[in-house]
Amino acid sequence: MDLDREEVETGPEVFRDEDGKPRPLFVESVTEAVASGDAAATYALVGSLHEADLGALLELLDHDARHQLIALMGADFDFTALTEVGETTREDILEDLPVETLAEAVRDLESDDAVAILETLEPDEQAEVLDALPAHERVLLSRSLNYPEDSAGRLMQTSLIAVPPFWTAGQVLDFFRETDPDLLPDNFFEVFVVDSGYRFLGTVFLDALVRARPDRRVDQIMQEDRRRLNDMDDRAEAARMFERYNLVSVPVVDEAERLVGVIMIDDIVDVMQEAASEEIKALGGVNPEEELSDNFWMTARSRFWWLLVNLATAFLASSVLRLFENQIEKMVALAVLAPIVASQGGNSATQTMTVIVRALATQELSRTNAVRVIFREAAAGAVNGAAFGLITGVVASNWFQNVGIAPVMALAMLTNLLAGAFGGVLIPLTLERFKVDPAVSASAFVTTVTDVIGYGAFLSIATIWFHLS
Amino acid sequence: MDLDREEVETGPEVFRDEDGKPRPLFVESVTEAVASGDAAATYALVGSLHEADLGALLELLDHDARHQLIALMGADFDFTALTEVGETTREDILEDLPVETLAEAVRDLESDDAVAILETLEPDEQAEVLDALPAHERVLLSRSLNYPEDSAGRLMQTSLIAVPPFWTAGQVLDFFRETDPDLLPDNFFEVFVVDSGYRFLGTVFLDALVRARPDRRVDQIMQEDRRRLNDMDDRAEAARMFERYNLVSVPVVDEAERLVGVIMIDDIVDVMQEAASEEIKALGGVNPEEELSDNFWMTARSRFWWLLVNLATAFLASSVLRLFENQIEKMVALAVLAPIVASQGGNSATQTMTVIVRALATQELSRTNAVRVIFREAAAGAVNGAAFGLITGVVASNWFQNVGIAPVMALAMLTNLLAGAFGGVLIPLTLERFKVDPAVSASAFVTTVTDVIGYGAFLSIATIWFHLS
Repeated sequence: MDLDREEVETGPEVFRDEDGKPRPLFVESVTEAVASGDAAATYALVGSLHEADLGALLELLDHDARHQLIALMGADFDFTALTEVGETTREDILEDLPVETLAEAVRDLESDDAVAILETLEPDEQAEVLDALPAHERVLLSRSLNYPEDSAGRLMQTSLIAVPPFWTAGQVLDFFRETDPDLLPDNFFEVFVVDSGYRFLGTVFLDALVRARPDRRVDQIMQEDRRRLNDMDDRAEAARMFERYNLVSVPVVDEAERLVGVIMIDDIVDVMQEAASEEIKALGGVNPEEELSDNFWMTARSRFWWLLVNLATAFLASSVLRLFENQIEKMVALAVLAPIVASQGGNSATQTMTVIVRALATQELSRTNAVRVIFREAAAGAVNGAAFGLITGVVASNWFQNVGIAPVMALAMLTNLLAGAFGGVLIPLTLERFKVDPAVSASAFVTTVTDVIGYGAFLSIATIWFHLS
Repeated sequence: MDLDREEVETGPEVFRDEDGKPRPLFVESVTEAVASGDAAATYALVGSLHEADLGALLELLDHDARHQLIALMGADFDFTALTEVGETTREDILEDLPVETLAEAVRDLESDDAVAILETLEPDEQAEVLDALPAHERVLLSRSLNYPEDSAGRLMQTSLIAVPPFWTAGQVLDFFRETDPDLLPDNFFEVFVVDSGYRFLGTVFLDALVRARPDRRVDQIMQEDRRRLNDMDDRAEAARMFERYNLVSVPVVDEAERLVGVIMIDDIVDVMQEAASEEIKALGGVNPEEELSDNFWMTARSRFWWLLVNLATAFLASSVLRLFENQIEKMVALAVLAPIVASQGGNSATQTMTVIVRALATQELSRTNAVRVIFREAAAGAVNGAAFGLITGVVASNWFQNVGIAPVMALAMLTNLLAGAFGGVLIPLTLERFKVDPAVSASAFVTTVTDVIGYGAFLSIATIWFHLS
């Protein structure tokens, strides 16, 4: 956890413009100061930046400038900034840093930030850095790193305050004043109550503590909140819990119900943003791991595979067109109009699919209301299918001066928008059922359906209507 | 603010299954209890539900069941649940409730929740409810409602604790114990320090307060944090500030720097989720206001307009095809292959556009790095254009047993993927520059580019290569 409570004198005013975007001039000044090896100028520009802005700045610099900046800043460089950059940038920065620098950085960070940096390192380098740490910290960090990557245990912060149930509110307040501040977490909102086996009993929020009479026992004012996370829970689940129940922090327990850490809302905000980015990228056919700082080669490679899948579906759709080569030869208008039917169906189905994928992600959609939503989509598809059948029928028959095109177009459009509606609902629901992420896979299937049915329906109906076979 | 601190005995265990999804059986039981007018059974099922789950349950019930449930629960109905449902459902519930019930509900809620309900009401009904409130609350709520809908002022909570700078930590702690709990906010994390003109001076977090010696003045332990919001700031801006700087709460000041309220992270989490949902929907061509509880007619209407725009672009693309009618008549293979070029270009451009739109939303992309990203996308487009030119050239020439198709296909594919890369970057950047939301508008432009250039390039090159003109 790294809640911002520092005074930032000049940071955002200078680095970011009034819209919150980085100023090109500022970035240029830093680049110059760093290139000329001017430590004083670099410090003047960068020294007071908030870690988030320092991270954003590092993203904008090239490899050499990043390393020169870190070297020039020396002990004043705030390694928390590395938790604010993308994976590619973090790797780029970490791979060339000496182990001593890394060990020193990791020692100064809160446990969750230290873990974020350690997990980026290669296994052998990670071991070296851990070896260079004091035993106590090594044990704590190793334990965190043993948790699976996306688990609550990996995300949680292990520094927290736990007290026995028989302490009074006054005793807890005295404890705060008398304890070495270095032994308390940097920021905290609550005190956890645990029994002698360190099993989680409840939570006393600070506002409840300061409102309580000093002689009240903590187990009288604590909330025995049953919402807690297991250390092996997925962090996506953690995010959903925070979001759904408006939580600021959740205790994490192990399988024996022992308190092992706490997850704070600010860590979860990052998880939520990441989840949103991943969903958006997945729907756009982009690998969720792709980052803006990737180079063109990584970018091209990561996009290739999805395009290859799409190419296969495009050939499949075109092989439907090819079945009707004879008809197209006789009536070229069909080749001109068929893509309109396919495209309109594809877009309508994409609308449906987007809504369904999003509702599945937020758990608004489940078995309880699936049937209602399927019917709604089918009905909406029928309405718009009829509307666009009418519109395209009229426009296309005028365009080609051929009245017969109107009913063919209308019927094909209705068919395809209906098919798209069913495909747009049923494909994501089916994928979800088989535990395949619908955001990633649904669109390829859905557009295949509307391409194949769009071409197939339009050309079959035309074949019959115009006696083309 | 409505942080969850209640003990929930049976709620999630019964309402939701282990994946967090609503249990159909539970919903059925509620429907039955409500239909038979069994208040005791309804209370047993619903009484201990968390407001978020109660909201989710209300979403799943139909109009009659919702109203019967509220009537059966009487004074035990937790109106906070209405802040957890979509706009359509909230309107559906509120439009039929008597003014007295509404006034009573609003009186019991925290200010931001009360505002969320009041803003859903029709103006005349809103006035009636406000009239039925005590003067003090009426004034406070009217003031909030006077703020623009998406402003920080509308979102903030007005109940907070402010103390003068000369108070000591001990005095503040005494103040908490001696004040009527009803006059303090339900939950709070910090105390604000204001001068005699109620101008914001700084913040003392509770953990700093309890760690301080009792005789320390609050202005010695406060953070003069410069991050604050203006009451007229947009809430999207507020969300970005919370997210970027890992904040838990931000004071809101008016234009005279007077403290007027506080925004808490849990309110912002909702704003963030909403923003993510809106971006996802916009990219999928769906009106951001569409909700899962809308009926088929509302759904069809809201999707119609985007489909109409798409239809226009489809006709535009097809008119390019029509320019080559003669060539298609001579060589039907062209009609079969042209859609593959267009589709592959469209998908590649969509990948690019998705990345750009997302990076603009998170402000990762700005003038500072735009040129680098444009070059990266162009280079990635060239690489994949060459790769898919090769693949499709080989496949298509074999498919049609015509060697000449290979170079035509390859060159058209390369051209279209390059065009798509430029379109995918430049169109969102241009829209953003003209303050048009690229998530909403970019895709229609981008696919028009790749359809028109895909058809145009492929058929022109084919015309020349095969001497078809």
